[in-house]
Amino acid sequence: MTSSLLSALNRSLHATVRLCSVFQPKNVCKSHVIAGGRWSTGWSTGWSRRFTNMTDTRGSPAFGKCTKGVLMAAGVFGTVAVGVCGLQQAEMATRVKKVEEVVEGDVAERCRNLMAPPITDVRVLEQRKHEMRSRMEMLIMETQADFCRALEEVDGGRFRVDRWSRQEGGGGISCVLQDSKVFEKAGVNVSVVFGHLSEEAAKQMRSRGKELKGKDGKLPFVAMGVSSVIHPKNPHIPTVHFNYRYFEVEEADGSKQWWFGGGTDLTPVYINEDDGVLFHSVLRDACDKHNPQYYPNFKKWCDRYFYIRHRNETRGIGGIFFDDLDSPSQEEAFSFVKSCAKTVVPCYLPIVRKHLTDTFTQEEKDWQQIRRGRYVEFNLVYDRGVKFGLATPGSRIESIIMSLPLTARWEYMHEPAEGTKEAEMLKVLRSPKEWI
Amino acid sequence: MTSSLLSALNRSLHATVRLCSVFQPKNVCKSHVIAGGRWSTGWSTGWSRRFTNMTDTRGSPAFGKCTKGVLMAAGVFGTVAVGVCGLQQAEMATRVKKVEEVVEGDVAERCRNLMAPPITDVRVLEQRKHEMRSRMEMLIMETQADFCRALEEVDGGRFRVDRWSRQEGGGGISCVLQDSKVFEKAGVNVSVVFGHLSEEAAKQMRSRGKELKGKDGKLPFVAMGVSSVIHPKNPHIPTVHFNYRYFEVEEADGSKQWWFGGGTDLTPVYINEDDGVLFHSVLRDACDKHNPQYYPNFKKWCDRYFYIRHRNETRGIGGIFFDDLDSPSQEEAFSFVKSCAKTVVPCYLPIVRKHLTDTFTQEEKDWQQIRRGRYVEFNLVYDRGVKFGLATPGSRIESIIMSLPLTARWEYMHEPAEGTKEAEMLKVLRSPKEWI
Repeated sequence: MTSSLLSALNRSLHATVRLCSVFQPKNVCKSHVIAGGRWSTGWSTGWSRRFTNMTDTRGSPAFGKCTKGVLMAAGVFGTVAVGVCGLQQAEMATRVKKVEEVVEGDVAERCRNLMAPPITDVRVLEQRKHEMRSRMEMLIMETQADFCRALEEVDGGRFRVDRWSRQEGGGGISCVLQDSKVFEKAGVNVSVVFGHLSEEAAKQMRSRGKELKGKDGKLPFVAMGVSSVIHPKNPHIPTVHFNYRYFEVEEADGSKQWWFGGGTDLTPVYINEDDGVLFHSVLRDACDKHNPQYYPNFKKWCDRYFYIRHRNETRGIGGIFFDDLDSPSQEEAFSFVKSCAKTVVPCYLPIVRKHLTDTFTQEEKDWQQIRRGRYVEFNLVYDRGVKFGLATPGSRIESIIMSLPLTARWEYMHEPAEGTKEAEMLKVLRSPKEWI
Repeated sequence: MTSSLLSALNRSLHATVRLCSVFQPKNVCKSHVIAGGRWSTGWSTGWSRRFTNMTDTRGSPAFGKCTKGVLMAAGVFGTVAVGVCGLQQAEMATRVKKVEEVVEGDVAERCRNLMAPPITDVRVLEQRKHEMRSRMEMLIMETQADFCRALEEVDGGRFRVDRWSRQEGGGGISCVLQDSKVFEKAGVNVSVVFGHLSEEAAKQMRSRGKELKGKDGKLPFVAMGVSSVIHPKNPHIPTVHFNYRYFEVEEADGSKQWWFGGGTDLTPVYINEDDGVLFHSVLRDACDKHNPQYYPNFKKWCDRYFYIRHRNETRGIGGIFFDDLDSPSQEEAFSFVKSCAKTVVPCYLPIVRKHLTDTFTQEEKDWQQIRRGRYVEFNLVYDRGVKFGLATPGSRIESIIMSLPLTARWEYMHEPAEGTKEAEMLKVLRSPKEWI
């Protein structure tokens, strides 16, 4: 479907979403600009209770000095909401308007339920609410909040919320629930970063076939995404991972190249046929609403991507994975990504609830820990986002490493005996199956 | 001292030592050729008790069919023991003879104390005992045995011994003691592999400045080494790692390029000044016998190599690390490597014994587990041998991954409080100190 080179670049660029400098006092953006603004009056107390990585917990730390940068960046990206899809612009403009007003609703109102204020100033999001970058930022913020609330409800614990900024532009919100009742480690991260593509990134892009013509050699970009990894304590509750992202780069003539990427995949410790069917069915249904080829293609892509080559095993039982999605139109692609993002709760929470009270043995816990070791191997050795992140100076390492489990285990020459549940799991990992 | 490119290639090539196909029945080399031979009569029972990864536990599985390959490879490398150091050949020939007969002793006799028969047929080692590849193979086999025995003595447990072969030529012996009384995981691995350099490896070598002229495009090589990682249970006993290796490649005119590499480094969980001084002193003494610049240079190199860039921390408190060592002569270089190999017991075992009965808290155990997580990060993200190994089809993965701890932990945003022992440890890792 697409070359690994193509997806590599996109993943790399996505990775910048996660790779931002740790929030430091010198980067703090004071809230004086919009203090007293609509969102800040009613919510700052609730939010500040949750912020642990800020020096100013009242109002939004991303405002003030940062606002200028955000506005500038927003200006750089101009007012063309739909980008390169000229043929469909008129139709889409109508649809965008409709979606904004009827479905997506008032930005400030929607912000009430987030885990923290958005990275971009709410006033900017309001002003530019027809632009894809604003709509996508709202989607990833809401996906984070919906997922965190659902996990909190089942766990009983509360997420720690860390807001951080990136010196070069943008920042993120990392929500983590660690060593809680149900979850060993649950991380849900949002990031929105912008700036200029490095020469290296631009070169990588060109090598992937994306011809980019910068103005005075500069290529302004914005990259954003929501990503999550949930490691439960009970070995009968699977680990889940999802990530949905958007990338935009502006060329010299003001036109933009943009694409979406993402996916959701499940990593059980033991095979449970019903869980696998439920998980894949929810994803397929989301895909089928947009294109009947999406699920079969993205399911295969997922099995290929989450493959631990040196073990000849997939990381889990898959799901969907896609990248470089820039068709059939920006509106349609966004609509598909939104459908996917809306599945993260219904494809996972029913499985969590079902196994909440399952009993387990020490042997089952040990096998879970060994599978956790494999998870670490995949993430540190193969995951392109992690690799790129760790190699990028100034990355917020904790937001990358938070995908690793709280605990993991490596036993020399561990091989489950034939006929065991562990061997059954391995068999599926060594030969991915069709679930539906 | 040497460019990272140079060391990268050497490490990569070294890695082939560890990266061999899992021993499978079809590769088993029957023992019929030397059954009844000197070493096999008295020891086969003792050895066979220990072999767990063989189909034929009597005698040596590396003999028989494999002998042809070994002899051929030995023939390919010719009879020039000293290699490219023409100026010193006469002098060295005398010294080699002296060392062989007076210090190194009878090959078969020396094989009595090994963990398993050498990879190369003992008769071949006897016949070619003046060649560096034979002398180095004996040294790494003896280093493995000496270290394993010392660990067994302090632990009370017995190493599992796995012999494996590599389809393309050579094989290895992996000794592992897991979840025992003192050690969480102790792995000591030997490998001796030979064949022809792949085009990729030859290209990498050229990029490192090693000009190699193959015969009909072929470059026969042999690579061998001993490597070990020991993770104790008690957080007051540090982890140790060492690796000593030798590489030889033959050019079209029959001449050889060769070099040594290696090092020993310590990774404590808590700083213990006396332990650090003892460890570094033993290594310095070994270095100083050969060159007063070795210790200061190789100590710095070690701190640079075992550096977790994304954490801005070294992995541990260092030791020595060197690569591409091809001077002042092959004999001198070997002598230095032998001195280093002889330190692995005295630089570590006294520290183990000293802390054997130290009590520890759950908090100290947790901190150990977090440091173990960092160890995993270094090994999977940065260690060139591991990276090369995992990327090489047919590698014996278990012999690479056995360097990982049995258990590890990743806590989100873990940062020790100021003034604690944990903070003291981090301070040293963030700013390596001079120990002596």
